[in-house]
Amino acid sequence: MKNILKISLIFLTVLAGACNKSQPDTAKQQNAELVFPKGEKITNANFTGTAWLQMLVNNDSIYNTSIGNVTFEPGARTNWHKHPGGQILLVTDGIGYYQEKGKPAQVIRKGDIVKIPLNTEHWHGASPVNSLTHIAISPNTDKGSVVWLHVVTDEEYNQAKQ
Amino acid sequence: MKNILKISLIFLTVLAGACNKSQPDTAKQQNAELVFPKGEKITNANFTGTAWLQMLVNNDSIYNTSIGNVTFEPGARTNWHKHPGGQILLVTDGIGYYQEKGKPAQVIRKGDIVKIPLNTEHWHGASPVNSLTHIAISPNTDKGSVVWLHVVTDEEYNQAKQ
Repeated sequence: MKNILKISLIFLTVLAGACNKSQPDTAKQQNAELVFPKGEKITNANFTGTAWLQMLVNNDSIYNTSIGNVTFEPGARTNWHKHPGGQILLVTDGIGYYQEKGKPAQVIRKGDIVKIPLNTEHWHGASPVNSLTHIAISPNTDKGSVVWLHVVTDEEYNQAKQ
Repeated sequence: MKNILKISLIFLTVLAGACNKSQPDTAKQQNAELVFPKGEKITNANFTGTAWLQMLVNNDSIYNTSIGNVTFEPGARTNWHKHPGGQILLVTDGIGYYQEKGKPAQVIRKGDIVKIPLNTEHWHGASPVNSLTHIAISPNTDKGSVVWLHVVTDEEYNQAKQ
């Protein structure tokens, strides 16, 4: 019986060691998903819920382009808005919605590319249970800056879920 | 002795099960690093070594922007070239080099942003022992397409390593 206890202890030690091996993988995985920083919490009134922004490239008159890394926590979304020069979203993590005025909302997820037409009212954000991270590329900024409009109401957001 | 063998077998089974648990993490990690597909092997003469391209956004006259996901295997690099509208690199994985004509090469790595000035001769690629993946954003394409120049010689590449 003593032998069995000894063997049990040895195997449990080996088992614990084997399980610990998976921890660096998990850490690396999280790191891989966070290629670019989450940035700062957005505090302006153009968003509902909690969203984060890390500017990657600030607009200037040479590149005519601004690039931001945006993370929406579950339920968070932009207000309705439009871009005189259009915008391109590269979805790098999570699940959310993109909706143009007068059209049904589309589900967008990691790996998706969204081309937002010029001067078109739209919004984007996370699903109620998933976060959403995208790189937002605004080209043709010489045509003008983003125009912010009204809030996406809970009713509008709930319709997107259907 | 038979008992010890039985117990050994049971523990080995549990151990194997515990080790298998780490496999989905690893798979997820690789998946996280591959948000966008690696695409097709580049077969034209504008590159040295093995590189891969997945176009994410094709150029058009509305967005004036093209976006490609480029992966360089160790030692691979572009030829010298220039962009009339400039280019922005978002480095998403690995380690490599970026060099403008007449300047020393810079080491670039995961998380780095490179703003390549308009009409400026340059090259980029992987280090000799690491691969490099970047999203290449070409804005202002109404100013013209990429102009390909001469090969980055082994001598030029070896100088970058120093």
